[in-house]
Amino acid sequence: MALTLAQLAAELDARLFGDGDTRISGLGSLKSAGPGELTFLANPRYRAYLEQTRAGAVLCTPDQAANCPVPALAVDDPYLAFARLSRHFDPAPVAPPGIHPTALIASSAQIDASASIAAHVVIEDGARVGAGAVVMANVFVGARAVVGDGVRLWPGVVLYHDVRLGERVNVHANTVIGSDGFGFAPSKEGWVKIAQVGSVSIGADTEIGACCTIDRGAIEDTRIGKGVIIDNQVHIAHNVVIGDHTALAGKVGIAGSTRIGSRCLLGGAVGVAGHLEIADDVQVLGMSLVSGSIKKPGTYASGTLLDEQTRWRKNTVRTRQLDELFRRVRDLEKDRDADRDTK
Amino acid sequence: MALTLAQLAAELDARLFGDGDTRISGLGSLKSAGPGELTFLANPRYRAYLEQTRAGAVLCTPDQAANCPVPALAVDDPYLAFARLSRHFDPAPVAPPGIHPTALIASSAQIDASASIAAHVVIEDGARVGAGAVVMANVFVGARAVVGDGVRLWPGVVLYHDVRLGERVNVHANTVIGSDGFGFAPSKEGWVKIAQVGSVSIGADTEIGACCTIDRGAIEDTRIGKGVIIDNQVHIAHNVVIGDHTALAGKVGIAGSTRIGSRCLLGGAVGVAGHLEIADDVQVLGMSLVSGSIKKPGTYASGTLLDEQTRWRKNTVRTRQLDELFRRVRDLEKDRDADRDTK
Amino acid sequence: MALTLAQLAAELDARLFGDGDTRISGLGSLKSAGPGELTFLANPRYRAYLEQTRAGAVLCTPDQAANCPVPALAVDDPYLAFARLSRHFDPAPVAPPGIHPTALIASSAQIDASASIAAHVVIEDGARVGAGAVVMANVFVGARAVVGDGVRLWPGVVLYHDVRLGERVNVHANTVIGSDGFGFAPSKEGWVKIAQVGSVSIGADTEIGACCTIDRGAIEDTRIGKGVIIDNQVHIAHNVVIGDHTALAGKVGIAGSTRIGSRCLLGGAVGVAGHLEIADDVQVLGMSLVSGSIKKPGTYASGTLLDEQTRWRKNTVRTRQLDELFRRVRDLEKDRDADRDTK
Repeated sequence: MALTLAQLAAELDARLFGDGDTRISGLGSLKSAGPGELTFLANPRYRAYLEQTRAGAVLCTPDQAANCPVPALAVDDPYLAFARLSRHFDPAPVAPPGIHPTALIASSAQIDASASIAAHVVIEDGARVGAGAVVMANVFVGARAVVGDGVRLWPGVVLYHDVRLGERVNVHANTVIGSDGFGFAPSKEGWVKIAQVGSVSIGADTEIGACCTIDRGAIEDTRIGKGVIIDNQVHIAHNVVIGDHTALAGKVGIAGSTRIGSRCLLGGAVGVAGHLEIADDVQVLGMSLVSGSIKKPGTYASGTLLDEQTRWRKNTVRTRQLDELFRRVRDLEKDRDADRDTK
Repeated sequence: MALTLAQLAAELDARLFGDGDTRISGLGSLKSAGPGELTFLANPRYRAYLEQTRAGAVLCTPDQAANCPVPALAVDDPYLAFARLSRHFDPAPVAPPGIHPTALIASSAQIDASASIAAHVVIEDGARVGAGAVVMANVFVGARAVVGDGVRLWPGVVLYHDVRLGERVNVHANTVIGSDGFGFAPSKEGWVKIAQVGSVSIGADTEIGACCTIDRGAIEDTRIGKGVIIDNQVHIAHNVVIGDHTALAGKVGIAGSTRIGSRCLLGGAVGVAGHLEIADDVQVLGMSLVSGSIKKPGTYASGTLLDEQTRWRKNTVRTRQLDELFRRVRDLEKDRDADRDTK
Repeated sequence: MALTLAQLAAELDARLFGDGDTRISGLGSLKSAGPGELTFLANPRYRAYLEQTRAGAVLCTPDQAANCPVPALAVDDPYLAFARLSRHFDPAPVAPPGIHPTALIASSAQIDASASIAAHVVIEDGARVGAGAVVMANVFVGARAVVGDGVRLWPGVVLYHDVRLGERVNVHANTVIGSDGFGFAPSKEGWVKIAQVGSVSIGADTEIGACCTIDRGAIEDTRIGKGVIIDNQVHIAHNVVIGDHTALAGKVGIAGSTRIGSRCLLGGAVGVAGHLEIADDVQVLGMSLVSGSIKKPGTYASGTLLDEQTRWRKNTVRTRQLDELFRRVRDLEKDRDADRDTK
């Protein structure tokens, strides 16, 4: 894959500095990119590298473009421009349309002629796969599931019955969508399972990482919005609702029936308890526990600070005596105040 | 699937209010259920919704049944009754008995004639699959593994060699049971792997979520009891023992050789260190770290409280000075006491 | 599989006490091993069990061998010796060389004649599989991926395009290597995906547990060293670099571009933030959050202590008032000091 700098400039509506015939066939970092590779300068801290770059071309702001020793494309947001162009250089193989002879498609399933269905895929009764969708090897698409146009399912993805994916949803390998929510009623004889009769719906342009789990709803559906980005090993329990453009970093876990707003950012391994409401535009730092609803946009945290082990132990055992310490300080204050009064 | 209210009343031994011929074909919530749908009122807080329900029928306590505007089934525990009936309305497709032609079954494996073996399943030498078991697409059953009667393995489940599942165990998609425990001896040249010669045994009626991992024992077996319920992405290390009817919420991790009692409840993302003993009837709140044995039933926690980021930072840095603060308070107390003595 | 004690002694260069013709066909613990089983005594606390052991033979130190009631092999490090011998008794089935007829191998892929390719495996264009490699059922090997000599891929493993595994790497079931890193640029219309054009390289003799995820690099590669040991459900983000012989316990998560040294030990569920540097020989206790670089070898922690719920709550709410408490103590100290000055 090679494109000229003029073509890339046109796509971005960027101002071109240097030879528009320069051919770009890959991406690189400012430090390591070689001829034929496109790079970018977004963080001013790295400006020094610009002078030494050997890249084929650089995406940068107009004022930086003047100092660039190689051809440049001047844009307002070089990082965003890099993102937009990066798809041209994605090394992921393009899947050919058509159904591999080893794929097993139920006769009542509807597969668009432009979809690509790879080896050993199983598609069950009444499922639908849209135009241009790519269903890679060993994927399972359950009964009545809907795979929207342009969806990509990487190898080993499992969609349970009735799951619905909007257009261009991208699901990485071995992720499971639509498994039973964790619903059991206690009885004298033990737990009695509650059939999970809801499903999962996922909005357009949402990306889901590898080895994630998104459970089907107990009665109503679990619902993920549009343009949501979800990293690897995220767990979303039954009846969770997630607003558009929210980002969940790796290993986030969200318990049942919690509603998360739009444009939220949950850091790595954040845990959110069940039946909560999180407002729009909330950010939570990594490894925090959200155990109550959050009504106001803002940034929140509950994580702990790392320390050298012996100091950590000394301080941490004290947390068990903290309430007592508050009482002792209260006593000291009372005594001081009484002392003053007697003076 | 449709059943009459009279049939459901008979199954529960419930008192029927209203027309026993009412046909029920699905489940709904008290607020959203429509005609033909069964719902329940368990939490008295939702009593107001009862008056407005448009459900086909409601499971509720006898005193509530009198106020119910639609047919009702009166029971002592409406939530449990709902759980018991819910299986009739489970949308999961029923799997036909028989072996799919693309499944590969070792000649020494024994498959009950009533079992359902789906496409692309691989069953290795000496494995056994019991009556009514459902082995879905792309499942791998290792050599000598035992799949009990009525077990269900969802797509992509991997059972390593020698793993044994009791009757009616339900394992969700892409879960791995019997992978090697994390056992290595340090040497001057690096880690030397210790072959994990134990296996995993899982008791009857246990449910295991999606993308879980349960490791085989180093020498003896990892053992999960009966009626245990395990949510998604739970990790159970080698030689762990878990008692009957214990519940593990999503993302729980249990390190090697720890023994957990019966009827315990571990909240989401709880971590339990290795070589511990946890008594029966212990509850641990979400995201807690259990680093010592727990001898007494009760509820335990170690989680942290969320706060707005700037307040959180101000308070959290103080935890590194906590032991010093205790000493400062001790000094203040000594000075106060010395002051008093001199008066 | 049975070996004589004399054979095992020769392999270890150990001193043999007792009958060298004793046949060993399995492994056991000191307490439970029976005739024909080999066990070991490493921890002096268990010495009492030695006198009662019914094992076929015991690995122990020379001074203990004298007291051993059964044949013994005297070695300096019995645990390491046990690890070295354990592979002889591994119950994992041996895979026959050759390609299963249901495997789908691209014509441009190169498979060594001594490799074992199991049922339903898919190997894409330009991939290479080395001598003695074992690729188990339902594995996916993406385009141009390199599977080194002696590698074992357990069922359901997914290697994306261009991933490279060194010799003897062992990857447990349903692990995903090479999925897209979590890279998106914000725009007014939402997140714009950045194609992840780097890959993953993994050094020789590294072991990776089940249901792990290791993301491909954004531009350059994610790199795991040699002899690294990684437990289940570990997540390694794009462009992470991990040094040789480091050990990552279950559920560890490492955010993007962080570099971890050699011979580190990260406990279970440790989280490491992005763009950090962790020195060689660093140990971090379980469930700690590493949010800054660590420059010095040593042991670190940030975990919290478990307590009975009511005491925990009383103490934990106080952490939100901790900074204020420090000010109150400072005030008390000032008042005391002022008092003293006036005396």
